[in-house]
Amino acid sequence: MRDIVVEKVTKEELLEKSRKPGRDAMKLHPFYRGKIEVVPKCVVRDLDDFGIWYTPGVAEPCRDIAKNPDRVFEHTNKANTVAVVSDGTRVLGLGDIGPRAGLPVMEGKALLFKYLGGVDAVPIMLDTKDPDQLIQAVTWMTPGFGGINLEDISSPKCFYILDRLRREVDIPVWHDDQQGTAAITLAAVINGLKIVGKRMDQALFSIIGVGAANVCLIRTLIKAGVPGRNIIAVDSTGILHPHREDLPALEEENRYKYQIALDTNGEGRTGGMAQAIRDTDVCIAASRPGPGTIKPEWAASMNDDAVMIAEANPIPEIWPWEAEEAGVRIFGTGRSDFPNQVNNSLGFPAIFRGTLDVMATTISDEMHIAAAYAIAEVAEQKGLREDYIVPTMEDWEVFPHEAAAVGRTAIEQGLARRTLSREELYQRAEATIRRAREETRFRMQKGFIPPPPE
Amino acid sequence: MRDIVVEKVTKEELLEKSRKPGRDAMKLHPFYRGKIEVVPKCVVRDLDDFGIWYTPGVAEPCRDIAKNPDRVFEHTNKANTVAVVSDGTRVLGLGDIGPRAGLPVMEGKALLFKYLGGVDAVPIMLDTKDPDQLIQAVTWMTPGFGGINLEDISSPKCFYILDRLRREVDIPVWHDDQQGTAAITLAAVINGLKIVGKRMDQALFSIIGVGAANVCLIRTLIKAGVPGRNIIAVDSTGILHPHREDLPALEEENRYKYQIALDTNGEGRTGGMAQAIRDTDVCIAASRPGPGTIKPEWAASMNDDAVMIAEANPIPEIWPWEAEEAGVRIFGTGRSDFPNQVNNSLGFPAIFRGTLDVMATTISDEMHIAAAYAIAEVAEQKGLREDYIVPTMEDWEVFPHEAAAVGRTAIEQGLARRTLSREELYQRAEATIRRAREETRFRMQKGFIPPPPE
Repeated sequence: MRDIVVEKVTKEELLEKSRKPGRDAMKLHPFYRGKIEVVPKCVVRDLDDFGIWYTPGVAEPCRDIAKNPDRVFEHTNKANTVAVVSDGTRVLGLGDIGPRAGLPVMEGKALLFKYLGGVDAVPIMLDTKDPDQLIQAVTWMTPGFGGINLEDISSPKCFYILDRLRREVDIPVWHDDQQGTAAITLAAVINGLKIVGKRMDQALFSIIGVGAANVCLIRTLIKAGVPGRNIIAVDSTGILHPHREDLPALEEENRYKYQIALDTNGEGRTGGMAQAIRDTDVCIAASRPGPGTIKPEWAASMNDDAVMIAEANPIPEIWPWEAEEAGVRIFGTGRSDFPNQVNNSLGFPAIFRGTLDVMATTISDEMHIAAAYAIAEVAEQKGLREDYIVPTMEDWEVFPHEAAAVGRTAIEQGLARRTLSREELYQRAEATIRRAREETRFRMQKGFIPPPPE
Repeated sequence: MRDIVVEKVTKEELLEKSRKPGRDAMKLHPFYRGKIEVVPKCVVRDLDDFGIWYTPGVAEPCRDIAKNPDRVFEHTNKANTVAVVSDGTRVLGLGDIGPRAGLPVMEGKALLFKYLGGVDAVPIMLDTKDPDQLIQAVTWMTPGFGGINLEDISSPKCFYILDRLRREVDIPVWHDDQQGTAAITLAAVINGLKIVGKRMDQALFSIIGVGAANVCLIRTLIKAGVPGRNIIAVDSTGILHPHREDLPALEEENRYKYQIALDTNGEGRTGGMAQAIRDTDVCIAASRPGPGTIKPEWAASMNDDAVMIAEANPIPEIWPWEAEEAGVRIFGTGRSDFPNQVNNSLGFPAIFRGTLDVMATTISDEMHIAAAYAIAEVAEQKGLREDYIVPTMEDWEVFPHEAAAVGRTAIEQGLARRTLSREELYQRAEATIRRAREETRFRMQKGFIPPPPE
């Protein structure tokens, strides 16, 4: 009886805790009116310097780039600037709220890009939902950017948009909901399996939801050594298998999902989410926001020493305490206020840092897999626990470590425009990120960023 | 004899001086690799704050904007963010050097926007020259911006682009080469005429070049009280008048120039540049970079107490010492290294400051004319001289003064979303701009902006 009372209080506290960030956000967003701003990067000793940075002096670097187009990387900030592009059609777990309502998220992303990766990111909210128009808009705006981060674009058009842009433009294009989520999820899987003593090539995986995140995750898991037959993927229609009735239609509408139906589920399992989860070792959900999307009894039907990652935002598919009660041994979510945050923020800032520092022409799957192993390594060095399978953002050595791994992989794959040693890459990334953090602290101390109201 | 020697040395020194900014630019651009960067605007006390600025907390402001679209101005930096958009087809006096080679200029513009106006500006270089595609790109990207600054887009398409965007999008659109140049040129004319004791409604104007800057200037002069008949405009084909042979063709190709041919040149003067300039009181050139575009003997043919503004970049249509020798009494250029810089930087930062502070829906001609009078007033208060007809950027009280005038005009015209007194507008602009300058100084002191190499 006493135990039950304590437990109820804890749940309420946790629920209460889960509501606090939203309440704080509603107070602090109108106070700060934006999360990022633009500041000078070059010296302004006196106003004569504007004759260097603007007319007449600026004409010389312009002429130089007109003659030697690659010099744009030398004379401008292109090499450190990323556009965070969204049409607002799939913002967090909120769905299609449009480009205006999505802006607070993209500003937050830009904040993380700088604070965690030293990358200058600019939100570009596009007022069109048409995939070809989105591709057109991004293609037109590439000259001023060193990379493109696509964000919160609905599935399946996001696959088509990413594929075409990666082929057609001359700078790296990344869709964080695909590659970024895959990288950090793979890191969590690597360490989760290490703790429970299971092997990547033997564990059975259930994958809940076959949208942006999980389509890329499945490809990533297979490239990282998971046999396709050991993956059971389920969407709202049911488990994917080669004989599902809608398969001919899928081949037309979503060839990515179609291919997964052919390549996975060696045992030919059928049914819905309950059947998909049963007797698997690892369950990864990136589907409908919860709670209640994954029922506790389904979680309870997993193998012993189960690893479950429930990534839906803003509420995971199942609450942590429900998963724990159901016997799941290792549990992670996408939220920063619960343990084991499988957090994209551990990926994209450093992945872009490493990519930009070697001026890579693209971000290959091998580059994001290298990032995943680097993330996993840092947590292991610090000591794995059931509630610590991936680093937190406090463990900030993860960022330069990861940047160096990504940069080296690009160099080894022949995708880099510049060659640096792992040590040089680490030093450079470490210095860039340290500067971003120290500067933010100084600006708060000096009142350029005012303290929040009481 | 002695005088001539001294004079020759002076010319050489001036020529040498005119080359220095370009040489410095070629050293310092690769050292700083960009002129602007992105930094946090909101507090980051610890990493838990990311739960407010990003998932899960950010979902609440997103939902709020989805329900109340105008709240995007409260929850984000939209209200202080301007896109500096260019296709690089008419960069300074360099012509069509393209969107990559134009980036150093647009980064410089963004630097000026922040340092002089406290405005967060982002260069958007577009890889298309088609006017309708440019309009399309800008239209798609409006949700994240509070204003659009078009820049260095060739004429006559720039007129069409500006007109359509001003009609079609819901944020202010400004073409600095049109409205910005007109505002500061009008200020110079107001004070130049004051010094020589001539009246705006009686002086005779020659206008050299009928491109982006001068088409808008002519409209602005007329709105500010210059009779159209007193304006003689000349392009590379000759003086504009209603019987010029190419007029039917012009009506099709460039209706803006066509209208000028009908509305100006009351005396029906014909001929070329030499004939246009003769016997005028004010000559304003925004045409081909010099030197030698305006010949000294043409300058010498102006009326006594002539005012001449030669705005071509990077080299004015005629050197200052040539104009002086030709007897021009008051001479200005677009360059920061000569006296009387008729400098767009005195306009756009404060004009946007005032526009954004009242959340105006557009920037009317009356708003930029109010800015011109405010600019002229500040120079007059400080004491007009032949080599001081407009403030320099050192006179930084001009910016809040101008912002307040622009904001009040928007309010009086019913174009503002927010009403503030002139004093409130001044205070707000003054504080915002002071913060930008102090922060830059502080960041240099602390080494976040390193000193230039020796």
